[in-house]
Amino acid sequence: MSDTHRQIRLAARPQGECKPSDWEHADAPAAAPGEGEFAGATKMISLDPAMRGWLDDRPSYLPPVGIGDVMRAASIVEVTASNHPGFAIGDHVVGTFGVQEQVVSDGRGALKVDPDTAPLATYLAALGMPGMTAYFGLLDVGALKEGETVLVSGAAGAVGSMVGQIAKVKGCRVIGIAGGPEKCALLTDELGFDAALDYRADGFKKALRDATPDGVDVYFDNVGGEILDLALTRLAMKARVVICGAISQYNSESRPQGPSNYMVLLVRRARMEGFVVFDYAKRYAEAAQEIAGWIAEGRIKSQEHVVQGAIDDFPETLQMLFRGENVGKLVLELA
Amino acid sequence: MSDTHRQIRLAARPQGECKPSDWEHADAPAAAPGEGEFAGATKMISLDPAMRGWLDDRPSYLPPVGIGDVMRAASIVEVTASNHPGFAIGDHVVGTFGVQEQVVSDGRGALKVDPDTAPLATYLAALGMPGMTAYFGLLDVGALKEGETVLVSGAAGAVGSMVGQIAKVKGCRVIGIAGGPEKCALLTDELGFDAALDYRADGFKKALRDATPDGVDVYFDNVGGEILDLALTRLAMKARVVICGAISQYNSESRPQGPSNYMVLLVRRARMEGFVVFDYAKRYAEAAQEIAGWIAEGRIKSQEHVVQGAIDDFPETLQMLFRGENVGKLVLELA
Repeated sequence: MSDTHRQIRLAARPQGECKPSDWEHADAPAAAPGEGEFAGATKMISLDPAMRGWLDDRPSYLPPVGIGDVMRAASIVEVTASNHPGFAIGDHVVGTFGVQEQVVSDGRGALKVDPDTAPLATYLAALGMPGMTAYFGLLDVGALKEGETVLVSGAAGAVGSMVGQIAKVKGCRVIGIAGGPEKCALLTDELGFDAALDYRADGFKKALRDATPDGVDVYFDNVGGEILDLALTRLAMKARVVICGAISQYNSESRPQGPSNYMVLLVRRARMEGFVVFDYAKRYAEAAQEIAGWIAEGRIKSQEHVVQGAIDDFPETLQMLFRGENVGKLVLELA
Repeated sequence: MSDTHRQIRLAARPQGECKPSDWEHADAPAAAPGEGEFAGATKMISLDPAMRGWLDDRPSYLPPVGIGDVMRAASIVEVTASNHPGFAIGDHVVGTFGVQEQVVSDGRGALKVDPDTAPLATYLAALGMPGMTAYFGLLDVGALKEGETVLVSGAAGAVGSMVGQIAKVKGCRVIGIAGGPEKCALLTDELGFDAALDYRADGFKKALRDATPDGVDVYFDNVGGEILDLALTRLAMKARVVICGAISQYNSESRPQGPSNYMVLLVRRARMEGFVVFDYAKRYAEAAQEIAGWIAEGRIKSQEHVVQGAIDDFPETLQMLFRGENVGKLVLELA
């Protein structure tokens, strides 16, 4: 390891879309692990839509990233030095280690992963937070039952692609909403969705109506905005709307768009419920084991979008999420 | 009974607020009861915010009132002639008999009430749909628990006044939102609310914050719009938002205002759920019995706003609801 390593720190709170000047590219001294700690070299960084929310100075489910702080991120590191009995040199470890080349950790919240069992990126995708989010959001919050109809937005994204596939495993009819014909083809041709609708295409509204003749029992929302509003009009009686994200609104400088059709909740006796996956931490192992089994059986594919680059590429790579340029879980793999 | 009787029929679908020309004041021949039917003279008509929704030609939990049809309304009639074994001359009967002076019924959906046990208006208020709506919305949909904090909008209305009082019976802290100092005084001085906030007053937002230092566990929404949006910011973890109505939006000619703060549902792991009281019809008797007990014990007051008038006064009386001029359940009592 070199004497210094590169960190991406928050320089300013973004107004709307993140600009290059919102980030500081800094060099920090290489840190040696103290007693009970290990050091690691970052191999792969997770990029998540939720990151945009962490940059705003307002109360949320996590405190905002402070100005001058290393950007918060999940990542996978390879242990390079260790004074911790649980982590040996060469181990691969996933944790919330931040956007930096080197990390020091006391092991809290860190989990060893085996690169021989699954590709590293899969531990940030199907077996990581997106997989956990889809699993608990759909099955626990959404209370999905066999034979129901599931609609998911952001369907070609990290969470959405898992939501649809888990719903198929559970014997449901699944309709995905995604941007562009390539993503839609992936959903139906490779991920087993029953239908995929391109929200940018003419006739999207009619296509949604035609694809959901009996209504939607669970709508899993990753995007908010107009699509949420439209999805509400398709709810079946006693439907559940799972609020997971609102990527269409994260860069908005004005007040977010609320769902003007929310009174459908009354007409259809439906509910809309939000959740944060961290609340399910005690059940992650159970979920990961079940998902790993589905992957082994060939019933689920972990969809990953790996960008090769340097840590300095983090800000630009993050923007891909908001431009809809990723297919599946977006990660930055350091050369 | 005279040879003809007066009916209020829907003449045109209102755009925004109802206008006099949206109603037809018609004379219909007095109808004699056939075999298995009874006839009644209308004594008292219920006026409900939901009526405005019934006038729009769009799918809802009930079909829209047709152009030319007698306006749908719950009412209490006194039986004037009967070929029905269950109803005798002089009986008082509540049912969805419509806005007309005389009715004929086969008894379906009709329920005898005793004017010696409670004032007639109470059967349209605490012991009627508003009482049922408050009871099941709060206890079943809202899953209220002892010791929780309840916020209710439209708190001086028919449903809101019952919501707050039932929550007090259940050992909760109750904050009501209403328009104007008189209504607020009623809530705290006569109905036992812990606090009442005037949404028209300066500093309402701060007052709401100050009144809910630990957040709100159940928010019972009768109004929608800005108040719903503001209430969302005060939700406690695992809060329940009960969607009962949206009176602020019913006369809107533009798209209804959606709650732009809905992502609070995610941050606070909260849910927003709608319901229609008719789904609880099998349990009305159980609820009415319990509410009657609370009234007898002096723990609940049925708040009624009785307007004396003729059937022709229905259109103008209905507008009182949307101008916030009623306190408690608004009924039109025919002279």
